[in-house]
Amino acid sequence: MASAPGPSVGRIPVVAVMPSLEEGRWPAKAVVGEAMPIVATVFREGHDAVGATAVVTGPKGSPIVLPMTCVNKGLREYRALVTPRVEGDYTFRVEGWSDPVTTWEHVAATKLHAGQDVALVLADGIAVLERALTEVKRSASKRRTLTGALDALRAETDDPETRFARAMSKEVRAVLAETPLRDWVTASREYPLRVDRERALVSAWYEMFPRSEGAKYSAVKKRWKSGTFATASKRLPAIAKMGFDIVYLTPIHPIGTSFRKGRNNALESNPTDPGSPYAIGSPEGGHDAIHPDLGTMEDFRAFVASARRLGLEVALDLALQCSPDHPWVTEHPEWFTTKLDGSIAYAENPPKKYHDIYPLNFDNDPEGIYREIRRVLDVWMGAGVTAFRVDNPHTKPLTFWERLLADVRRDHPDVIFLSEAFTNPPMMHTLAKIGFHQSYTYFTWRQTAEELGAYLVELSDESSSFMRPNFWPTTHDILTPDMQDGGAPLFQARAVVAATGSPSWGIYSGYEFAECVARPGAEEQIDNEKYEFRPRPWAKANKRGIAPLLAQLNAIRRDHPALQRLRGLAIHRADNPAILCFSRHLDADESPTGLEDTIIVVASLDPSATQESIIHLNPLVLGLPDVKRVPVVDLLTGTELQWGPTCRVTLGPKTGMAYVAALQRNVTAGGARG
Amino acid sequence: MASAPGPSVGRIPVVAVMPSLEEGRWPAKAVVGEAMPIVATVFREGHDAVGATAVVTGPKGSPIVLPMTCVNKGLREYRALVTPRVEGDYTFRVEGWSDPVTTWEHVAATKLHAGQDVALVLADGIAVLERALTEVKRSASKRRTLTGALDALRAETDDPETRFARAMSKEVRAVLAETPLRDWVTASREYPLRVDRERALVSAWYEMFPRSEGAKYSAVKKRWKSGTFATASKRLPAIAKMGFDIVYLTPIHPIGTSFRKGRNNALESNPTDPGSPYAIGSPEGGHDAIHPDLGTMEDFRAFVASARRLGLEVALDLALQCSPDHPWVTEHPEWFTTKLDGSIAYAENPPKKYHDIYPLNFDNDPEGIYREIRRVLDVWMGAGVTAFRVDNPHTKPLTFWERLLADVRRDHPDVIFLSEAFTNPPMMHTLAKIGFHQSYTYFTWRQTAEELGAYLVELSDESSSFMRPNFWPTTHDILTPDMQDGGAPLFQARAVVAATGSPSWGIYSGYEFAECVARPGAEEQIDNEKYEFRPRPWAKANKRGIAPLLAQLNAIRRDHPALQRLRGLAIHRADNPAILCFSRHLDADESPTGLEDTIIVVASLDPSATQESIIHLNPLVLGLPDVKRVPVVDLLTGTELQWGPTCRVTLGPKTGMAYVAALQRNVTAGGARG
Repeated sequence: MASAPGPSVGRIPVVAVMPSLEEGRWPAKAVVGEAMPIVATVFREGHDAVGATAVVTGPKGSPIVLPMTCVNKGLREYRALVTPRVEGDYTFRVEGWSDPVTTWEHVAATKLHAGQDVALVLADGIAVLERALTEVKRSASKRRTLTGALDALRAETDDPETRFARAMSKEVRAVLAETPLRDWVTASREYPLRVDRERALVSAWYEMFPRSEGAKYSAVKKRWKSGTFATASKRLPAIAKMGFDIVYLTPIHPIGTSFRKGRNNALESNPTDPGSPYAIGSPEGGHDAIHPDLGTMEDFRAFVASARRLGLEVALDLALQCSPDHPWVTEHPEWFTTKLDGSIAYAENPPKKYHDIYPLNFDNDPEGIYREIRRVLDVWMGAGVTAFRVDNPHTKPLTFWERLLADVRRDHPDVIFLSEAFTNPPMMHTLAKIGFHQSYTYFTWRQTAEELGAYLVELSDESSSFMRPNFWPTTHDILTPDMQDGGAPLFQARAVVAATGSPSWGIYSGYEFAECVARPGAEEQIDNEKYEFRPRPWAKANKRGIAPLLAQLNAIRRDHPALQRLRGLAIHRADNPAILCFSRHLDADESPTGLEDTIIVVASLDPSATQESIIHLNPLVLGLPDVKRVPVVDLLTGTELQWGPTCRVTLGPKTGMAYVAALQRNVTAGGARG
Repeated sequence: MASAPGPSVGRIPVVAVMPSLEEGRWPAKAVVGEAMPIVATVFREGHDAVGATAVVTGPKGSPIVLPMTCVNKGLREYRALVTPRVEGDYTFRVEGWSDPVTTWEHVAATKLHAGQDVALVLADGIAVLERALTEVKRSASKRRTLTGALDALRAETDDPETRFARAMSKEVRAVLAETPLRDWVTASREYPLRVDRERALVSAWYEMFPRSEGAKYSAVKKRWKSGTFATASKRLPAIAKMGFDIVYLTPIHPIGTSFRKGRNNALESNPTDPGSPYAIGSPEGGHDAIHPDLGTMEDFRAFVASARRLGLEVALDLALQCSPDHPWVTEHPEWFTTKLDGSIAYAENPPKKYHDIYPLNFDNDPEGIYREIRRVLDVWMGAGVTAFRVDNPHTKPLTFWERLLADVRRDHPDVIFLSEAFTNPPMMHTLAKIGFHQSYTYFTWRQTAEELGAYLVELSDESSSFMRPNFWPTTHDILTPDMQDGGAPLFQARAVVAATGSPSWGIYSGYEFAECVARPGAEEQIDNEKYEFRPRPWAKANKRGIAPLLAQLNAIRRDHPALQRLRGLAIHRADNPAILCFSRHLDADESPTGLEDTIIVVASLDPSATQESIIHLNPLVLGLPDVKRVPVVDLLTGTELQWGPTCRVTLGPKTGMAYVAALQRNVTAGGARG
């Protein structure tokens, strides 16, 4: 009965269907088990009732039919939640329809109450319920329910209001709501929806330079011996124990020697400097090769296997640039830009020059470059890599990424791509829309509670259907001024906000030590691991309390579905601007456990002093049964707290920088647990 | 060179093209001479420069090519203004492209300044300007300008920076900006745009019941003699003199007698009651007929001709409902709803019943009803009617209106339809999108300065590409509580806000007398003209000052292009909540006169007392040359005023309820006119 979608308005107009990215050009995103809202505006002429249905067609072609609820009467907004159960490409549409049963019911209730047109009203009811019985397919037991309703309407010995009440019983309403009688069904166009595995949304990343792990300085030889995959794999149990899901390795390929950078980004290097792993390629190979110091492909596979055994996935860095020594430079000079003087163009940001890097020119031989990079990815996916952290995707054509991501997805739907594009919002958003599974964000630069609050709202709401944020308090490239000054307390606070503010977050190794000294004049660490070996004294890692905190945060994230979803975030007002307060709430029907879940996070962003604040919890968004009492357990300390809609918190480097408080629902009015 | 728009991202991404209604499903609206903004987000990978072009294709097929300006660098937002010169159906697209000349220019400026790669930079410049010269078609004189630029670059005796500066002279830049060298041109899809005659946007309506004009009571016969088209036409010169554009007549058709309503909506009527003209149809005819009391079709044509001679258009009421006596009821009972008892359904809003009205059931015979109504419209358009005020369009299927409006537009592109849908926003917006030229609005119910201000912003901004508001302070159906209490001062103030707040406004006759007594319990006038004759003593109309004010407002509207456009409105803060202050500003490039125009309206909404306020004029939106002085002339009194960014106003029933102040631009710093 659905009419074809067309350029014209339908009999029952359906407009403003969401999520729709760029007029339905790209699919909205969800993961398996994620409750995604489908929203549309459905209305009709006159006073008759309308209804709306969301029809979601999965990769196997079987449609899921979801009744939609009116969530804003004035604006005629209808909503359904779809929770996909398998990965793949879906479509959805919204059907608006005229609802003859409800139309009759409204008229009948009023008229029977007024004693008006009684016989006619009952006759109309019999006619419409007979239609509902005969025109819609139902099970025998449900047909019996409707037949009972018809019998009730026809029971002439009863008074009219009783006949009506019995006919429209709770059971009858349920049967009609499940499979309603629908007239003038008008379908929207089909909108695309892409469903990934849950890890695409929910993940904890741990970044490391494998060469640092197990690297040793020989005072005799006055040079370092590089760590290997074998020595690096010894670090994996600790990473797994902290609860991380993905180990991300900075580039593992041979490193060029031409114009190699020295320590602290010096233009000149010593022969013993290892060079930046981002200057990829040497006579020993390019993007498909392994740096000989790290080991062989077999060693890499063994590393991946060790990780797997610990429940860790391995992500590689995909940095599509070359050192002047990369094999491509001689084999495919056409993949680079040749200047008028015949030389190959190195990277420049005038007047700055980066002689150690040759950017690819994707326009010169798009097909050749594409095939080679696709082949390179196959090498690593073949070796067990299931995720890529893509370096600066915003400096390569988006057409390239769209093709590559679609292509990889066809053969390897489980492989996750994280976009490292710290750039303008349209570029970041479009990279997400064309297929990147996750995105680095501006989180690192949002420093005040006000900035963070506004950004959390943006990410959990307006961009939630296409951009999955991954929050990193620091990276090997970024150490913001507040972190330079903040020391361990701010490292603690920002880890809490990162781990709870987004379903995905990431930590760069060394965070455990609150490594916070910057190279003068730069917003990155001094003695940056990019240019030297940085083995760390892990035995002392617990000293600053950060390593246990990371473990605790990942454990809390696993226990609490509210922290595994992007939507459901709300900011609560704190009177003190140094304090950020937000909640994450999942209704039972959105939660994979089937239970409501609510977490309230309160964090101080001032690492230097104790801060007190009144916080004003908005009970509306917390799903609270009792709006006057907010009993919580602080999951960081195990302390039970009796908060209220207004309560006082004290946070600081001495007392603790944050609460991660779980709302206790099973508490009786008297305060004892039910 | 434009690539085909497709589902994939383009080489130079173009996203978020506006205006786009429901994913480009319906055309955006403009009128001839209206500067309409086209906006898009255009960006690319890396650091190279991009440009954007809007290409507008008119009804004659010749494209207008408009360079777009970057209006928000961070968000990569580009904008062009298109000012259509003829009516008809347009399309537009946005082309994003790589800009090799600007890319080179940025690099060259930096490198030459640093003395870096000088020879290469100049060689690159020669190469790119040669491309600009040979690959883009230009006039001989413009080619000479570019050849000159090349000569300058090649002038080896000059120093490099001089060669660069001479090559990129103002003239060269102008030539390149007009017809740039464009690489990787990537086109958006085509978006529809509908251009109507200017009256569709800019109009002043005057509503009258023609039977009242010249109606006379005979004390002897104890009954009224109806006014006629002939007597009503005597009122036209006064209406024209007040500056109105369109005379709108409530229904002129025969009126049913079954269940005719008496005075003040009484269920029983006296034989002498004329009945509501909205109870259309009697044995004397239906929607294609004229009430015999008013005259003949010839008389109607004469009325239209009189109006035309005075520069007035005639609008009819299109009220698609029938009295039980309408010929359709017997000729086409299938056009109505037949109840189970065999009777035809009258209008109901249970428990209320409207026995005097039969609604059409458009679903029973959509084709038959459509053809008949289309024929009825032809009758009236054939008689010279150029506008229709459509009664309650939201109670008829939108599919019907979309078809009818498209169909009429094909044959009569000049005919304007005004939608009277006081209902939910999705319905109002969708009626506008599917083809209604103008819409009644919530203006009547927005009573405080805050409510009015927010509504003015909404209408002039977010809905401005599809909904053209028509502001009515009262209608024959509506007399809001504030107007009932407000008397002449509020009638004055709301006339000012209506006339200046929207390019279209309308007045219901009798407004001149501030008729403000309501029928008890109703929000409409007592002794409502719908149910009786209401001749008015026009000789006394000037007494309350409203008739001259209406004339003055219409004259000001004609003189000031800023009041003839929807966009360009800004609210300015008034400290006193009883005071509304807004401005309308047109830049020179948006103004049909080619001159900037700025009007500042300050109105008090308190008819009972004098109100003072500080107003805070935002100089940014006024296009002020001198932000400290705001010299204006109050157009209502002719008074010159020296306002500033902060100034004090006093308004009230004694001193005047409003300023309509024109910004004086040609004033020298000393205060004297230039």
